[in-house]
Amino acid sequence: MYLATVVGQVWATRKEATLSGLRLLVVQPYLRGNQQTAETMVAVDSIGADVGERVLVVMGRAARHAIGKGHDIGFQCAIVGVIDAAELSGGERVGQTAESDRIPERSS
Amino acid sequence: MYLATVVGQVWATRKEATLSGLRLLVVQPYLRGNQQTAETMVAVDSIGADVGERVLVVMGRAARHAIGKGHDIGFQCAIVGVIDAAELSGGERVGQTAESDRIPERSS
Amino acid sequence: MYLATVVGQVWATRKEATLSGLRLLVVQPYLRGNQQTAETMVAVDSIGADVGERVLVVMGRAARHAIGKGHDIGFQCAIVGVIDAAELSGGERVGQTAESDRIPERSS
Amino acid sequence: MYLATVVGQVWATRKEATLSGLRLLVVQPYLRGNQQTAETMVAVDSIGADVGERVLVVMGRAARHAIGKGHDIGFQCAIVGVIDAAELSGGERVGQTAESDRIPERSS
Amino acid sequence: MYLATVVGQVWATRKEATLSGLRLLVVQPYLRGNQQTAETMVAVDSIGADVGERVLVVMGRAARHAIGKGHDIGFQCAIVGVIDAAELSGGERVGQTAESDRIPERSS
Repeated sequence: MYLATVVGQVWATRKEATLSGLRLLVVQPYLRGNQQTAETMVAVDSIGADVGERVLVVMGRAARHAIGKGHDIGFQCAIVGVIDAAELSGGERVGQTAESDRIPERSS
Repeated sequence: MYLATVVGQVWATRKEATLSGLRLLVVQPYLRGNQQTAETMVAVDSIGADVGERVLVVMGRAARHAIGKGHDIGFQCAIVGVIDAAELSGGERVGQTAESDRIPERSS
Repeated sequence: MYLATVVGQVWATRKEATLSGLRLLVVQPYLRGNQQTAETMVAVDSIGADVGERVLVVMGRAARHAIGKGHDIGFQCAIVGVIDAAELSGGERVGQTAESDRIPERSS
Repeated sequence: MYLATVVGQVWATRKEATLSGLRLLVVQPYLRGNQQTAETMVAVDSIGADVGERVLVVMGRAARHAIGKGHDIGFQCAIVGVIDAAELSGGERVGQTAESDRIPERSS
Repeated sequence: MYLATVVGQVWATRKEATLSGLRLLVVQPYLRGNQQTAETMVAVDSIGADVGERVLVVMGRAARHAIGKGHDIGFQCAIVGVIDAAELSGGERVGQTAESDRIPERSS
């Protein structure tokens, strides 16, 4: 399970039948100090998350379980929570959206 | 599950019996800003994807389920969708093929 | 399973029902010589770990098992131990907290 | 599932009983343009692959299934095919062995 | 499954009940040419491996199986073999311990 930011949405007409009707969001893992990464994942959304929100993402079997037995095949990544906030060591605060973060200045 | 581009195909005569008759495509994960990576995966194709198309790829047990019970062993990576488009933050648009992308210029 | 440091906590009101009542901690993998990484994971805590403590973290199915059958869906990362110490080659000692480490100076 | 090159063999007398009689090969993931990586995996060989050959490698549960029910514990990585060739975009061709590759010159 | 070196041991008094009585070793993945990495894993030892020895490590469900049904929860990484040697391409030889390696000089 990891902290991530919703950065977009994917549309696919030709797809595995079990993906029908599911909302597919593009998420980017959160790195300390809000450092940027080019890596993304596509997660099924069961929570109603919006672009810009910080979320909890699970992978593997847990993801398929989170969406429900009716959709137990064809994906392995899901959003399971929208965070209110995360408090990290060194005064770093991850807010509900990227705009609400409070990242301490690094002295070095 | 992740966004990827189909970049090729693999042929193998000597192989695990459960791989017989399956189309094996080489896929490359999509990175923000269409940055290039040297990493690839080999995915079983159940959708009829073509080289150059952007696809959704799953790994693990979900991949074996997506291909059907008749082929439930011997692989753990499958293409489960061909994307129409993905809209990402900052105006980045991942098109159905690499040629149809719209990547904003980076100012820095 | 890997060594990690608890670096924070996450709160989420809108979440997967199976995450209700679980304590969600942010953990950072330990790297040799206490090198820093920007990567974090969110782990369910079943041990009562505190921020700053060094812990053992498991992923996947083992994580869901560690928390108990009552919570067998929705996550795949758990804290399964608080370490007393780890003795590594080259005289490196990982203490119970980051403050109690003893990292040998590197000559190069 | 990924493309890899067989780069060696491992011998182990003291081992998990379920590994007895299995051939353990060291494989290195193939990177675009035949770039080198220092990472390797150890895979159980069910195909009769030789050092230098390009192979298909699976991980996880699929690997244990590929070797057969008689050996369903103690490993999670297997060779499931020896490739004839892979044709990649940009004219890159991965041959049956490293010597038979055809990698286009990069202009940049 | 991968080649690794045992680089230390971990002690934890407060831990998941299913970890009781298990020996927890810190292992570092082997990289070609004996290059160093800062990454480590913690593996349950079922073989009686010593610090400095080269071992085979498995992750996931295979790890839990290797330790036995009596301990099938709470971890997902195990040592399943102590290697005698590995012969790699280019004349590289991984010995039973780090001291017994034979790494060819790189000309570049």
